[in-house]
Amino acid sequence: MFSRNVHNPLITPRGVAASRPDFEVLGTFNAGVTTYRDEVILLLRIAERPLQTDPKCVRYPEMLPDGEIVVREVNRDDEHIDASDPRLIFHRRTGKVSLTSMSHLRLARSHDGIHFTVDEHPWLVAQPPYETFGVEDARITCIENTYYVNYSAVSALGICTGLISTRDFVNVERQGIIFPPSNRDVTIFPERVNGLYVCYHRPMPALLGSLNIWSATSPDLKHWGNHQVVVTAQDQGWEAGRVGGGAPPIRTPQGWLSIYHAADPNDRYCLGAFLTPLEEPWRVIGRSRTPILAPEAAYETSGFFPNVVFTCGALLQNDLLKVYYGASDEVIALAEIPLADVLASLADTPSKT
Amino acid sequence: MFSRNVHNPLITPRGVAASRPDFEVLGTFNAGVTTYRDEVILLLRIAERPLQTDPKCVRYPEMLPDGEIVVREVNRDDEHIDASDPRLIFHRRTGKVSLTSMSHLRLARSHDGIHFTVDEHPWLVAQPPYETFGVEDARITCIENTYYVNYSAVSALGICTGLISTRDFVNVERQGIIFPPSNRDVTIFPERVNGLYVCYHRPMPALLGSLNIWSATSPDLKHWGNHQVVVTAQDQGWEAGRVGGGAPPIRTPQGWLSIYHAADPNDRYCLGAFLTPLEEPWRVIGRSRTPILAPEAAYETSGFFPNVVFTCGALLQNDLLKVYYGASDEVIALAEIPLADVLASLADTPSKT
Repeated sequence: MFSRNVHNPLITPRGVAASRPDFEVLGTFNAGVTTYRDEVILLLRIAERPLQTDPKCVRYPEMLPDGEIVVREVNRDDEHIDASDPRLIFHRRTGKVSLTSMSHLRLARSHDGIHFTVDEHPWLVAQPPYETFGVEDARITCIENTYYVNYSAVSALGICTGLISTRDFVNVERQGIIFPPSNRDVTIFPERVNGLYVCYHRPMPALLGSLNIWSATSPDLKHWGNHQVVVTAQDQGWEAGRVGGGAPPIRTPQGWLSIYHAADPNDRYCLGAFLTPLEEPWRVIGRSRTPILAPEAAYETSGFFPNVVFTCGALLQNDLLKVYYGASDEVIALAEIPLADVLASLADTPSKT
Repeated sequence: MFSRNVHNPLITPRGVAASRPDFEVLGTFNAGVTTYRDEVILLLRIAERPLQTDPKCVRYPEMLPDGEIVVREVNRDDEHIDASDPRLIFHRRTGKVSLTSMSHLRLARSHDGIHFTVDEHPWLVAQPPYETFGVEDARITCIENTYYVNYSAVSALGICTGLISTRDFVNVERQGIIFPPSNRDVTIFPERVNGLYVCYHRPMPALLGSLNIWSATSPDLKHWGNHQVVVTAQDQGWEAGRVGGGAPPIRTPQGWLSIYHAADPNDRYCLGAFLTPLEEPWRVIGRSRTPILAPEAAYETSGFFPNVVFTCGALLQNDLLKVYYGASDEVIALAEIPLADVLASLADTPSKT
């Protein structure tokens, strides 16, 4: 049903400068999306790492307590480390983990929504103590002319969700940590419901519980409560591993439309959609039975982490839903679908999740 | 330094009726504490299970979607289940877990704080969908004549924190889920700081992060935000596994005093204390170097889950700190210490956790 843009992938690491000359860009993906003035704005996740100079060693970034990022190097043969997972270094003596790359947020802009100019410098860089491993996966929600950007704040303390706000994408105000660890995939609604702000969030429970989508309300966007489970992972199929919020909810005449992601035990990530009443965003009345977008194109089935389509934002323009999505944790792509087709694809769902 | 009460343990399962004739009480422990009128009130965690009739079988409780609790029975030899852990049943075919016991909250009252009368019937029973595995570990905070009781709401959806309020311990108003999974050990301050309510909470992060104590603020006790890490688990020693809130913070002239728990990798639970400025409850200025209470008495070193002392509440009366604590996940005990002795025991701590 989705039509992939012929220019896909729209943005790749090859076209983007690293934040410093001794780093290289690994991924330009999972971008928050909005429109500002007459442009489409993306806040890209840029994953980068130190240039690797010696195949026997791994060079990785480490943020010091004061925020400075230094380059560390370990020998792959060092018995005290385990570098078998390319994404991380496990330090056997301390039990601690370092990531081999670090992400920041970078702004890209476009007049046609297809050809983007990517800023040369980071738009938001990580800060200690909650972001020492980086900032990831921005979502943008415009409420009354202020743009709220939530993102994953990753550190050894866990995966939290941070919030910042801006009115012009130049001046940024940090609003603190809005969800403690482990919680990501937060999508904030563009308007209040029954007087309160609303979001979906995706706790990652320990001991008991699965990776489900929950709702929460807030009087001020900083303090969140009244948590309710909304969409649950399934026992089998494409949603058997996890579900999580994707694009911030979009108002349609039929209700709030949400594009979400789901993954199976093989870490194959697909996109689905669900619908709720405008006044009850915690009650699902329609949901995809099958993926509306699954990894099929070459840039989706191969790359840094293959078989992933993952969205952080979509635009509804002239009854056309334009979904920007990260593919294989490496590039940004665009797919479009008439809104009516998405809505028609949703299966009626009893109020039970 | 602590003086254990000579009547310890004060409450044991033998003195408490099960909620139904076909159940037995396993534990009467981890009680929230307050004073109401001229009595000391405990909200006990009562863990109970179906009477076991056949050694070859395990009978366990299961809550149906409508809230009814039915008794299930599995054969220990059934190849599709694993009952080797006495606390749970693992269903191999579905990958799901059932608990062998279920907890509710029960009120106990005393004029002298030592001899308690335990209600015959539950004070708060679990409700679907967030409490299908039970309600546990109440903490009580009195704010302007209303008693706020937070507790662990446990279900297959995860370990959440629920909030209820009461003015008379008869009529109870549910306030919903205030922390999504996994989060427990919430302790709410008895007064606002800088205009906002404050609590400590203990997220249980997945993938990255340790079991640390965080602070949060709230405009209304229902919505929580501005999360900050306050007390972190250590690399070695009695705090090497986890730390978590214990008694709700107590105002002293020197600052907010908190009694917390810590556990080591052997699951030995001890109590410690920390102190913060009255205006900055997220900045630790004094903290125990060694446990202020460790499992030593017979009822602390043997029982359902041995080597555990765990508090959910303390009273400060005439400069004497009275800590009620669960011992070995089975009984309630009391230990007292002069406030001055606790404060003198705290090591100066730089603002860094």
